[in-house]
Amino acid sequence: MNEYVLDPKTHDVLVARAYTHRGYTPDEADCAAKLCHMASRHGIKTHNAIKALHLDHLFGSGKADNPGCVPGAQIEKLPSKFRATQRWNAHKKLGQAVAFEAIDTCEKLADQFGVGVVAVDEAFHYLWGGGYVMASAKRGYIAYTNCTAALAEVVPFGGKHPTLGTNPHSWGLPTTDAIGFPIVVDWATSTLAMGRVQQFAREGKTLPPDAAVDKNGKPTQDPNAVAALLPFGAHKGYGLSLINELVAAYIGGSLPTLRCRVGGENEKHTPSFFFQVIHPDAIACDFAKGRSQKENLKAVIADILGHGNDGCILPGEIEHRAAQRCEQAGGLIFSEAEIAALRELAAECQYPLPPSSIKPCASS
Amino acid sequence: MNEYVLDPKTHDVLVARAYTHRGYTPDEADCAAKLCHMASRHGIKTHNAIKALHLDHLFGSGKADNPGCVPGAQIEKLPSKFRATQRWNAHKKLGQAVAFEAIDTCEKLADQFGVGVVAVDEAFHYLWGGGYVMASAKRGYIAYTNCTAALAEVVPFGGKHPTLGTNPHSWGLPTTDAIGFPIVVDWATSTLAMGRVQQFAREGKTLPPDAAVDKNGKPTQDPNAVAALLPFGAHKGYGLSLINELVAAYIGGSLPTLRCRVGGENEKHTPSFFFQVIHPDAIACDFAKGRSQKENLKAVIADILGHGNDGCILPGEIEHRAAQRCEQAGGLIFSEAEIAALRELAAECQYPLPPSSIKPCASS
Repeated sequence: MNEYVLDPKTHDVLVARAYTHRGYTPDEADCAAKLCHMASRHGIKTHNAIKALHLDHLFGSGKADNPGCVPGAQIEKLPSKFRATQRWNAHKKLGQAVAFEAIDTCEKLADQFGVGVVAVDEAFHYLWGGGYVMASAKRGYIAYTNCTAALAEVVPFGGKHPTLGTNPHSWGLPTTDAIGFPIVVDWATSTLAMGRVQQFAREGKTLPPDAAVDKNGKPTQDPNAVAALLPFGAHKGYGLSLINELVAAYIGGSLPTLRCRVGGENEKHTPSFFFQVIHPDAIACDFAKGRSQKENLKAVIADILGHGNDGCILPGEIEHRAAQRCEQAGGLIFSEAEIAALRELAAECQYPLPPSSIKPCASS
Repeated sequence: MNEYVLDPKTHDVLVARAYTHRGYTPDEADCAAKLCHMASRHGIKTHNAIKALHLDHLFGSGKADNPGCVPGAQIEKLPSKFRATQRWNAHKKLGQAVAFEAIDTCEKLADQFGVGVVAVDEAFHYLWGGGYVMASAKRGYIAYTNCTAALAEVVPFGGKHPTLGTNPHSWGLPTTDAIGFPIVVDWATSTLAMGRVQQFAREGKTLPPDAAVDKNGKPTQDPNAVAALLPFGAHKGYGLSLINELVAAYIGGSLPTLRCRVGGENEKHTPSFFFQVIHPDAIACDFAKGRSQKENLKAVIADILGHGNDGCILPGEIEHRAAQRCEQAGGLIFSEAEIAALRELAAECQYPLPPSSIKPCASS
């Protein structure tokens, strides 16, 4: 596969311009560019600029009737008697802008109280949950987020009809001092994403078992027959997906099957976010052999990956290696097809990419 | 299978006496009896009185060299500048007594700050994590706990040697007003427990795939060849198990492979606990159609279980039905073998069970 290296600053200007061109404020556009940059730097192709702007077009500002995302919307911070938690109505503001502010607020609360929580109602897709907790973990915090995914595409364990989102969970652990990068546990609660099913279909491949069902609710391995997805790990993944729906329901999320769809008079159609940060000092007790907390982390991780387990990959390690590769290449790495899509975005917002900003990737 | 109904008060007196007979204080013994009662009432046979006292014998007060649990130990609450979190050194106090006090403390913190966290170092097995969060959810809170399981029996994804515990996660959601019982998501991060593998061996059955490995680290379905367990859901369950080890490492847990074992000069050998409670009011924003938070929960759950999904079971529902059955039977239900084991415990602590306290179970 031919790969190209895009100058990071050019990428950021392009993405920000594409967002301001659609009516977003400069601050919102910068947040969008920042998350797309982080995603591309860490090899998260499912949430790069192309996907983000496509999502905005389909469900966000580009959706003519009842847009899911409103440029320039203001976060309303609701009054609360509880000091370590906040409850926000995002009023459909750009998800990335809300998420960056929420995780930052959680960190400030954790600095003061040991733990901080921000619950967000009336949200729009924040794209890559792992990005926010990774950034927080790099700043030294234990961070967690979950959200309700846009569409209900997943069948509850034992059911037939999709009534759950792919509802991801993302944990970031501050392990950079111990191993050189933060451990990030970040995945959807479905076995596969719907995008992967479509990829299997294009490539004429068979799905793994227990990943999807057909229109009758029967398990299928034929990607062309897929009507809905299944949770990973049977009842366990189902429980994890259900948690996001219930947390969203406590926050203010409405019926899952109406989310990001039309219908249901006076129902809401927005996802919800939950963010939480813990200050590692707040849970630090006593460490054996006079170790510091960081040294203890390092010793525990070395024990887990010792005893012949050196072939194991830590969660977040693949993303770390992708970032190292970008570092060596001197920019963000994209495939030929992705560069073509970025050129289309550049044409949309009248920002021609300087020829010198794109170079072939030496290591591709 | 013949089943018997044991008078609940007799059960509680028996279990408390068995613990005081081993040197535990009356308060500790009452906590132990309470959790065993809850476990038996909810059909959790893996954590009833027989198992609890057997565990205490093997790893707790009965372990001659370096007991894992010390009767009468006092919790040391370490000073902290953070007001919504606490850090405790349990000094190997009985796990159930520590866990009940920890979840209670989290609730008080959540009443004040919206969220409360208690981290526990130098702990001893708390048995049934689901019990503490279920009780908290019944009192109206969103509760969560994780812990490091006694022994490292689980191989990290892609590895060969067991360096992770079966590390459970337990979430309790206050849904009683909506559906009649709290939703409780509670399971180990291994595909099976080691006790289940032994049961498969006794019954001459084959294990499911991807549940265990042999001594060479190769996957096996032969229960007699099992040397270690595998996480559920491949890298996803691995990540979830790893979270408990890392949270424990931030708290003060030492090398996983030494936990509850001997060796490693000046290393610690104790599990760690993490507890967290969120007040549902602290995250409540705005609900569609003028619903209350409780009505919103009910509507969301009805949507998830609607559309032909009425065959789905909610997490916690099986435990709820077990409690209903005990209610109808007028006591705690035990098998014939369990009654025999309880009689042995009764002999140990010289508390003969009154004949009238045990009756055949009408519905068995």
